[in-house]
Amino acid sequence: MSQAADETLSEFRRSIDNIDAALIYMLAERFKITQKIGIYKKTKSMPPADPDREKEQIARLRVLAKAAELEPEFAEKFLNFIVTEVIRNHERIRATK
Amino acid sequence: MSQAADETLSEFRRSIDNIDAALIYMLAERFKITQKIGIYKKTKSMPPADPDREKEQIARLRVLAKAAELEPEFAEKFLNFIVTEVIRNHERIRATK
Repeated sequence: MSQAADETLSEFRRSIDNIDAALIYMLAERFKITQKIGIYKKTKSMPPADPDREKEQIARLRVLAKAAELEPEFAEKFLNFIVTEVIRNHERIRATK
Repeated sequence: MSQAADETLSEFRRSIDNIDAALIYMLAERFKITQKIGIYKKTKSMPPADPDREKEQIARLRVLAKAAELEPEFAEKFLNFIVTEVIRNHERIRATK
């Protein structure tokens, strides 16, 4: 039997799909804000990255992850993944006139 | 002036922090479900990965991303990032008795 034909698995997957839609919409909103931050930083000639801020974010997300029963290491990897993308976007904004 | 002392930037960052908390809690819930899927797949001797399912997920998330004004390429990268972690977890579950 294919995995798609397994009703138990399909039910799990429908929940995953709902959560993923929520994640995508939250990420879209997050990038709208970081886009604004990128433009703001450019006007103020601030560097795209802020290592102190990133350290605070990692510490905070690790605490939240523990409370939510998510591996803190994963939360940290997740933030690094997002921040890499954000900095790439900020650099793109700085490169435009 | 440090970035932390900039009030405009701080306001943006407080919104980012709220969104990140929401993301962490959603991700925690997502991993609770994939954990259950991992155990279920093990009992049914199903392989950890399902390329057909992943293709469907990517196509769906790219559509949602466009609706949310998020780069579809980023949505795809995001799913790949999550799925890599999930498969690692499934393999860990299979390796246990």
